[in-house]
Amino acid sequence: MPELRKDPMSGRWVIISVERGKRPSDFGVRVSPKKGGFCAFCEGNERTTPPEIMAFRPGSGDSNTSGWSLRVVPNKFPALNVEGQLERVGEGIFDKMNGVGAHEVVIECPDHNSTLSTMPLKSVEGTLWAFHQRMEDLRKDNRFKYVLVFKNEGDDAGASLEHTHSQLIALPIIPQLVEEELFLSKQYYSYKERCIFCDVIRQERDGKMRVISENEDFIAIAPFASRAPFETMILPKRHESAFAPHGNFDLLAQILQRTLKQIDKVLDLPPYNLMIHTSPFKDETNEYYHWHIEILPKLTKIAGFEWGSGFYINPTPPEEAAKFMREADV
Amino acid sequence: MPELRKDPMSGRWVIISVERGKRPSDFGVRVSPKKGGFCAFCEGNERTTPPEIMAFRPGSGDSNTSGWSLRVVPNKFPALNVEGQLERVGEGIFDKMNGVGAHEVVIECPDHNSTLSTMPLKSVEGTLWAFHQRMEDLRKDNRFKYVLVFKNEGDDAGASLEHTHSQLIALPIIPQLVEEELFLSKQYYSYKERCIFCDVIRQERDGKMRVISENEDFIAIAPFASRAPFETMILPKRHESAFAPHGNFDLLAQILQRTLKQIDKVLDLPPYNLMIHTSPFKDETNEYYHWHIEILPKLTKIAGFEWGSGFYINPTPPEEAAKFMREADV
Repeated sequence: MPELRKDPMSGRWVIISVERGKRPSDFGVRVSPKKGGFCAFCEGNERTTPPEIMAFRPGSGDSNTSGWSLRVVPNKFPALNVEGQLERVGEGIFDKMNGVGAHEVVIECPDHNSTLSTMPLKSVEGTLWAFHQRMEDLRKDNRFKYVLVFKNEGDDAGASLEHTHSQLIALPIIPQLVEEELFLSKQYYSYKERCIFCDVIRQERDGKMRVISENEDFIAIAPFASRAPFETMILPKRHESAFAPHGNFDLLAQILQRTLKQIDKVLDLPPYNLMIHTSPFKDETNEYYHWHIEILPKLTKIAGFEWGSGFYINPTPPEEAAKFMREADV
Repeated sequence: MPELRKDPMSGRWVIISVERGKRPSDFGVRVSPKKGGFCAFCEGNERTTPPEIMAFRPGSGDSNTSGWSLRVVPNKFPALNVEGQLERVGEGIFDKMNGVGAHEVVIECPDHNSTLSTMPLKSVEGTLWAFHQRMEDLRKDNRFKYVLVFKNEGDDAGASLEHTHSQLIALPIIPQLVEEELFLSKQYYSYKERCIFCDVIRQERDGKMRVISENEDFIAIAPFASRAPFETMILPKRHESAFAPHGNFDLLAQILQRTLKQIDKVLDLPPYNLMIHTSPFKDETNEYYHWHIEILPKLTKIAGFEWGSGFYINPTPPEEAAKFMREADV
């Protein structure tokens, strides 16, 4: 019999097919090989992107010239506009506001063919530092309440450019999914006086079957109520409400790249989405919320049942996914 | 500047690109042509599906033989099992229950190549009657709290079989997205003592720019905060909390098929998902919730931003979508 499982942090129910679990080779969704051609994110083409917001340049060198190891540029086709005032207005029964926000692209390394899983570990660490620095900067703009960092790997996951990159969008409102996690984790805290994420980590470390890997500071797990096959969550083992006060990005880069290598190995280069969930700017230091990275390989299709219910059907139990990941030789 | 819009019924925010709105021809996502070959849903192959639950047979004729105009059969690969007791158990901090539920397939008409948009109007009406009758029957099983009716058209929308069909899943819990709509519509009702859906219909009929079509009993609109290009909602114009007490399925079939013909014409046979939202079994007659059909053409990809935030980016303003739909010659 399938199992209905509830994710205690989001309130989301999923249907897990525990009997005829799909194995990695049953999916066959793969990132298309890169086609090459002109690429605005490649070294030498700096002038074809909007002027850079920041960059890491190991040598010296001017902005928007070559010699960088990482660049952050405004998205050429932003979902939100960075200029303008926030204005909330009604339209009869409806509410709307100006689409004010920042939409930036982190070009993670100069090499067109690298991915987060194959680039030098130092570049992964640099990428995490770039997220951190951009958040520090965007926090000063009091129009913004939240910064969502995300990455789309592969066209099936929504990437429109091949060259490895992440994105961040600063928003004037707290996203609904984060609000829901905040609400439930506050509720848990008011009852238990403990962080629900800390409790989940404790239980998973005891049980071990959904733990993928650990290092001194971080843990990667297959969530009990994974929405999708091989969903993975990376969390700091000690309580940290926001990304990332201690900046121990060497260890985070290590577990992140290891996890992505495992995903690439087990699923043969699947498309995936990666998201960072953190506490909102106005409430960054708290006892109840715990920042984390979510990785969702894009192996199944979202259909009418999911769109209509908010339920997900996951054909691979997370216990099996974690085992495949643990056993991957990376 | 883009616009942030909030859907008052679900609390969902969307980013609408009001300036460089994408036109229908910009998407280019199309249902793949049918390949044919053996089909378990075609007439003559009745024995290859699980035994039918109900069927419309204009002549007489035995169950599971030809001569039908519509069949309902159990899904051969059900997401939930119809046998078994509900059992809620904890696993430390986690909650789970047996995956008890019903998963049925409505084979809408015998013709392999028809779609809801091209089949005889009588078959669309028959399909709605089948939904209704199955709900009436499943309601008697007190393990079930909700029945979600949905349809996936085209493989990009998650359809795994070509032959036109819909599905329904009876669930032991109320889906999260429906719970959210119930919560917000109750809140609105407690403040205004009016149904929020009725108020939206009133406002849209006054403004007209998001109205796609109307008949005596139903209205089709492009929601103010559409999640996706050409999202469409069909609602009864008079307050009805659950699907569908008056059974005026001739008029519903008419507006539904007209809407799907418009979508097919404007977008050139796009894949889509269709879902019915209705009040849960235990609370079917109420003043605050209003059943409706949601249709989501599958033109854009769900990427990290949507997965991480619950926000949607919609490149086509609903006002433009409604205009294209109104002007489609069907």
